[in-house]
Amino acid sequence: MLATRLKHQIEEKYWIVGERLPSIRVLCVTYGHSKNTVIKALHILESENVIEARARSGFYVSLQAANIAPTHQKIKFLRPIKVNVPEIFQDIMDRSAAFDILPNEPLAPPSSSLITLHRHINNAMRFQANKKAMYYDEPQGSLVLRNQLQDDYRHNGLSLSSEEYCITSGCQQSLFLALMVTCQPGDNVAVESPGFYGVLQLLQQLQLNAIEIPSSPTTGVDIDIFESALKKWNIKALVVTPAFATPTGATMPTEHKKNLISLANQYDIALIEDDIYADLGFMERPFPLKSLDTENRVILCSSFSKSLSRDIRVGWIIGGRWQKDIVKLKLVTSLANSQATQIGLASFLKNGHYKRHINQKRLILKQQRDQLITNIQRYWSNSVHFSIPNGGLALWIKLDSKINTQTLYYQALERKIILTPGSLFSVEDRFHNFIRLSFNHPSIGNRKNALKILSNLCVDR
Amino acid sequence: MLATRLKHQIEEKYWIVGERLPSIRVLCVTYGHSKNTVIKALHILESENVIEARARSGFYVSLQAANIAPTHQKIKFLRPIKVNVPEIFQDIMDRSAAFDILPNEPLAPPSSSLITLHRHINNAMRFQANKKAMYYDEPQGSLVLRNQLQDDYRHNGLSLSSEEYCITSGCQQSLFLALMVTCQPGDNVAVESPGFYGVLQLLQQLQLNAIEIPSSPTTGVDIDIFESALKKWNIKALVVTPAFATPTGATMPTEHKKNLISLANQYDIALIEDDIYADLGFMERPFPLKSLDTENRVILCSSFSKSLSRDIRVGWIIGGRWQKDIVKLKLVTSLANSQATQIGLASFLKNGHYKRHINQKRLILKQQRDQLITNIQRYWSNSVHFSIPNGGLALWIKLDSKINTQTLYYQALERKIILTPGSLFSVEDRFHNFIRLSFNHPSIGNRKNALKILSNLCVDR
Repeated sequence: MLATRLKHQIEEKYWIVGERLPSIRVLCVTYGHSKNTVIKALHILESENVIEARARSGFYVSLQAANIAPTHQKIKFLRPIKVNVPEIFQDIMDRSAAFDILPNEPLAPPSSSLITLHRHINNAMRFQANKKAMYYDEPQGSLVLRNQLQDDYRHNGLSLSSEEYCITSGCQQSLFLALMVTCQPGDNVAVESPGFYGVLQLLQQLQLNAIEIPSSPTTGVDIDIFESALKKWNIKALVVTPAFATPTGATMPTEHKKNLISLANQYDIALIEDDIYADLGFMERPFPLKSLDTENRVILCSSFSKSLSRDIRVGWIIGGRWQKDIVKLKLVTSLANSQATQIGLASFLKNGHYKRHINQKRLILKQQRDQLITNIQRYWSNSVHFSIPNGGLALWIKLDSKINTQTLYYQALERKIILTPGSLFSVEDRFHNFIRLSFNHPSIGNRKNALKILSNLCVDR
Repeated sequence: MLATRLKHQIEEKYWIVGERLPSIRVLCVTYGHSKNTVIKALHILESENVIEARARSGFYVSLQAANIAPTHQKIKFLRPIKVNVPEIFQDIMDRSAAFDILPNEPLAPPSSSLITLHRHINNAMRFQANKKAMYYDEPQGSLVLRNQLQDDYRHNGLSLSSEEYCITSGCQQSLFLALMVTCQPGDNVAVESPGFYGVLQLLQQLQLNAIEIPSSPTTGVDIDIFESALKKWNIKALVVTPAFATPTGATMPTEHKKNLISLANQYDIALIEDDIYADLGFMERPFPLKSLDTENRVILCSSFSKSLSRDIRVGWIIGGRWQKDIVKLKLVTSLANSQATQIGLASFLKNGHYKRHINQKRLILKQQRDQLITNIQRYWSNSVHFSIPNGGLALWIKLDSKINTQTLYYQALERKIILTPGSLFSVEDRFHNFIRLSFNHPSIGNRKNALKILSNLCVDR
């Protein structure tokens, strides 16, 4: 049957993801079938999501046909671990925060939205310049920005007053504040596994123990296993990224979020929500976990670093029942933020520039995701598996189990190629054959070539 | 004798500080003495620093004639205290950070140096805008700024490489990092008394105990008492402001600094140096304690908030033997700073704008200090005492011992006048009849009037 034959060829990477299939006329000639048979086969494949029709363009191998992976790994023991991030990881972490396989490559000129943002900040700097130079920002951050944020979150299912927001210098500071007010040294904190290494570093600094909860690359943290951990251990907080978690890009189904809220209420724990990737959803912006919060125990942490600019240093935290302590801790540990930046940013948001920017960015990121997948399939053939996130900035890729990606990291580094080895995303000995690759930059030119070099390094060993 | 008579009149505030004495001719007529006798009397007063001659202008009542106070208070018990800053202080602390008696009064237009600074930052924002938006700043902060800082400190007796500097978002963050890497919850930290309340708040947040070391309003922390505390208690660190400490404006003599370094070496403690006011010296910029450091155990903390702008959020820390841990802690708790701001600031410094700015600012602050003293003497007469700092931003004023300045604070607040009550500068029950008043703004117009209202409030009770 033609459909089976084509499907097999797609599985074998004869046709790769995102590639356009030949025209119906060519398919008839190639496979010696009638036009009707070809059309019927294509429709079967389309109904199975193996290919997709694009208006006035033809049939393309769809993403669903990619090597979606059983990246779910069993955890040997569910237990609290004193976090000790190896010194050797420090260097890797510093470099890989860039989300760029070739950080020395030239970049595109700045987008018009970035230029507009700078104009707004520059205007804010000039307005009442002496007042800003002479007085510190208020402890919670500029009211004008908090008002704008609460207004924007209202469209995402979160109805809170601006008093419930506190501006920070980024999501990492928000996470620090959240962990510091909810936990004491020696406490147990549950984290996703694989999960964001910045959180693991924080646990180490604050002398907190990590309990790694397995996290599915598609639906996020495993609720049942989390519940069994709650039964067994005294847990103070769970740090969770419900939308497009790094490294997997997993997004929690609404049902899972509701269950999580119930568990938190039942076991009296804090839920620390990392919302930083939520605006980078290709199809939709998932509602925050905070919007389902019934007992004010979700602390939402986020920033504009991934969606707009890493250099404006503006994040926020919604502290729930810990809000007062959070504001005090922020004041005492960092005093204030830049008023000019906040006011400029608020005016940028108010005028709709961010909405336009993010709509465009989503389209570009989706294209770049597909580009990255196409190239990975081209160069690695069947030897890799990955899940396909519908947002965020990265793919979580499982290589051949014989490959140690820490070793691969150093081999790649010699060629100035930067990847993020999987073992960074766990404090247990896990994910040694995984890497995170970002689609924050287009996989073209030298960056595309770097992927080819990387695949060769995987084969050569 | 005429000299004694004039001196008595000055003590009685018949002539107030900074006031010009009548001409020699007028003095002859007024006091019925010969010209020679008057000149002789004036020279006696000049030799005793009661008055000073100013070229082509005449004789002025000198600052030394002001009510220099025995503000040195005995500490009842020298002991570690669990810090618990009363909730009621939070509001006061938030407001008084402004260093302005009338925060709603209009301010002068921004200085040309502030406008120049903004131009430099704006230029830096535009340059490689996409690179800045896409990549976080390096963990230690921009090299170009660190290079500039180490170069500037070289002129102040500190020869260190830029590797030994780490950029922060302000002095408060630097102090937080310093305390966090040197101490564990439950440890004892020595502080100046009176001392900066921001440090007391930090001790509370980090669960550290304070040992208050009496601090002279002229020479700072009492070295002998500190030594006796070191003998008695296990102390991890001393937080000290050797140059123009707040609230007193005290500056440590070099000999004291050397003794402090010896003690730190002998007892194996960290010296956390708050250098934030050092550039605001009217006569000279004192050499930092760090420049005398022999065992790399001084951690220098500072920022541009008091000297240039509170809104650019750029501070620094020189971490000594703890540098590596400090950089790691900064990365983990706040990730990064704004590259554009740092690069713009570095270029502002490099072009000599800061030097010009600070030279001008010193003159203005000295004038404003004299203005404040004149007004205090005018309105309070003999009922107040204060020391006269040669730098910094504030006077530390001792009122009648019956006055409780916390009560006064709320009475003044009803009239929209902000003062900082003395009890904020100690965790013991001390300084209840002290206030800190800043000369960061000119004491003219409504601000002058506010001083008059304040003095009436002191009398009315």
